Amino acid sequence: MKPILVFQTDFTYKEGAVSSMYGVVKSVDRELEIMDGTHELPQYDTWSASYRLYQSLPFWPEGTIYVSVVDPGVGTKRRACVARTKSGHYVVSPDNGSLTHVKRFMGIEAVREIDESVNRLRGKGTEEVAIFHGRDLFGYTAAKLASGIIDFEGVGPEYPVEEIVEHQILEPVTGQGKAEGIFEINDPNFGNLWTNISLVGFREAGFEYGDMVRTVVRHGGKKVFDDTILFHKSFGYAGKGEPMIYNNELMKIAVAVSQGSFSERYGVGYGPEWTVEFSKA
Amino acid sequence: MKPILVFQTDFTYKEGAVSSMYGVVKSVDRELEIMDGTHELPQYDTWSASYRLYQSLPFWPEGTIYVSVVDPGVGTKRRACVARTKSGHYVVSPDNGSLTHVKRFMGIEAVREIDESVNRLRGKGTEEVAIFHGRDLFGYTAAKLASGIIDFEGVGPEYPVEEIVEHQILEPVTGQGKAEGIFEINDPNFGNLWTNISLVGFREAGFEYGDMVRTVVRHGGKKVFDDTILFHKSFGYAGKGEPMIYNNELMKIAVAVSQGSFSERYGVGYGPEWTVEFSKA
Amino acid sequence: MKPILVFQTDFTYKEGAVSSMYGVVKSVDRELEIMDGTHELPQYDTWSASYRLYQSLPFWPEGTIYVSVVDPGVGTKRRACVARTKSGHYVVSPDNGSLTHVKRFMGIEAVREIDESVNRLRGKGTEEVAIFHGRDLFGYTAAKLASGIIDFEGVGPEYPVEEIVEHQILEPVTGQGKAEGIFEINDPNFGNLWTNISLVGFREAGFEYGDMVRTVVRHGGKKVFDDTILFHKSFGYAGKGEPMIYNNELMKIAVAVSQGSFSERYGVGYGPEWTVEFSKA
Repeated sequence: MKPILVFQTDFTYKEGAVSSMYGVVKSVDRELEIMDGTHELPQYDTWSASYRLYQSLPFWPEGTIYVSVVDPGVGTKRRACVARTKSGHYVVSPDNGSLTHVKRFMGIEAVREIDESVNRLRGKGTEEVAIFHGRDLFGYTAAKLASGIIDFEGVGPEYPVEEIVEHQILEPVTGQGKAEGIFEINDPNFGNLWTNISLVGFREAGFEYGDMVRTVVRHGGKKVFDDTILFHKSFGYAGKGEPMIYNNELMKIAVAVSQGSFSERYGVGYGPEWTVEFSKA
Repeated sequence: MKPILVFQTDFTYKEGAVSSMYGVVKSVDRELEIMDGTHELPQYDTWSASYRLYQSLPFWPEGTIYVSVVDPGVGTKRRACVARTKSGHYVVSPDNGSLTHVKRFMGIEAVREIDESVNRLRGKGTEEVAIFHGRDLFGYTAAKLASGIIDFEGVGPEYPVEEIVEHQILEPVTGQGKAEGIFEINDPNFGNLWTNISLVGFREAGFEYGDMVRTVVRHGGKKVFDDTILFHKSFGYAGKGEPMIYNNELMKIAVAVSQGSFSERYGVGYGPEWTVEFSKA
Repeated sequence: MKPILVFQTDFTYKEGAVSSMYGVVKSVDRELEIMDGTHELPQYDTWSASYRLYQSLPFWPEGTIYVSVVDPGVGTKRRACVARTKSGHYVVSPDNGSLTHVKRFMGIEAVREIDESVNRLRGKGTEEVAIFHGRDLFGYTAAKLASGIIDFEGVGPEYPVEEIVEHQILEPVTGQGKAEGIFEINDPNFGNLWTNISLVGFREAGFEYGDMVRTVVRHGGKKVFDDTILFHKSFGYAGKGEPMIYNNELMKIAVAVSQGSFSERYGVGYGPEWTVEFSKA
């Protein structure tokens, strides 16, 4: 079978953009299978695009082609590329930071710049410079690749993996009875916040399920949360409405309010300026 | 062909959870077909999960496997199960009230507890206790079942259908020229409210299309709506902005504002404390 | 392969309506392929339904069956129809203005009224007058057509294309160094507004990429925006937060704020009362 195409964008489903992009894919090859990754990424947020790729891509079969279109620099000189990961997946994306986590944590074997002279949709009134790259460039190239019309070499010229644009990634610091890091992303639906501290590192620092852990959150250095809360396996161990620490689906340390929103209750966000410090109570 | 997998959750499409869950399914068996039921169920609302299953499942082909993940008790002792309905459909879900309507109105023939020792995804960094049961337990088990890797017996040990956790369901009361019930669910998009009174019962009580019907809504006994409104076949019979009574897609009595929102205009919700009383005007 | 079915509605994915509609399609023919166009059209807005069809349909393969259900007049005498376009696509929709743009810009070859006596779902408790036409009439008929159970003639009686209900479409006016039109639709996610002025016409009027263009927006004749802004190929040419003119994915002139929302920043909407006037600065 041909590889699956998964799409993530910041387009939403509110108008016709996703539909026309998918129509182009199906017009390239009726047989191709399209799956929604998400179309609700925060606008222009290439960090989130990068994180969501890292969160999802490893769970898809080898060969899967993941198309990621969060593209604030559309039409400028940022590269449009296709990367092949060490795991044998493909990512089709603007090279604008969206590949940060995949490069760091999965490894990228090779990357090629999309050659617009051959891999851009023409006709249908788009001969002029339409700027819908999701439809005319990324989706179209991904479809050709999935269909076998082009191979990876046919995408365009290779360039050094080292040139891939990356966001800075901060590393957590752990010591005996102590772990410090940042909230690097949220779970926007449930209001949980995910740190960059791994469960493995947290345990090596001496924290165990069932421990009460002093947790201090600061925003730009200013304290916004300071409490001693439960670390446990799952939300069910905390009382409804209580804050707690758990390890998330990516085996990193996270905080939540059981059946509530940590983010809303305490006004906490994510990014490099949101630090968190855990210590044995 | 292999059975279709339909998913309903309260995850939303805002982050990478649905994508990684679907990736696991496709990694079990590339051929499996996945459909979205909805990922926008109200959070932790097992009543809604139950109602939406009842609303949708009967319309899918026999053999369809419906995965429902609204799971406030994830990680506690609530059972994870697969139920086979009398109609030959399967529901994969936490046994936490989500099966209430299917059990009552479609009938459940048999139910089995998912054996985590064999039907839980390992590897990909999830050897430790990740708590994403949607991905690692429910989705994964459903995929194995759909693919034929396990049969229904292979899910895990059977347990008595009587032990399935149920929400209370209130019965409507109808008499000559009178019908009383509750709003048991809403149509959140259009702001309609659906009662638990069947069209058949309503008609037996003497109401006919074209009738003007006195309608009293109470919340916790306190009157919040009292007006005489039209009962008719469809919204088009009422003037734009007028409240009316109609029979919904499940052949139950419902109230709406034509091209407006009954729920917002009158501040009306649903649940056992929202009673409604119809009488001949 | 059988034709693809694409669906656009104003149902949202918040409850079980889309799922039961798709279940009916799959029950007609397990093999049929269903794609989401969008389920988030503005409620009752047949103009948007019409525009989104026009925006998306041409990109899908010939033979694709597009089901559009925005249906404020459901249950009244408005016709339910299937139209065949000159391009060989099909649209299944209430005949309520939703076909306006497709008729005008793609051309409709023939249209047939759905014969409810043969093409309406019965059984499953829907023998009575359920009013879910999306599920029981439009989706069901589209599935039968896609599956080959009926051909186009089997939909029901043909009627004159001239009788198709249309919204009024306003034409732009261009002259030397001047172009006047309306905002005919928005991009609700990014807050862009799309005019009815074509790139071709705009250029013939003398505007070039890189020009600074005086732009006046009026609402009901009252000025709400008056500034001289950049016309260029893509957002990347404007500074972040600056308003600009570009040509959109349908090769029409549009306005945006780079990485911002023109619509929100300036309080601008769309429709016949929103006029826009461009002139050489």
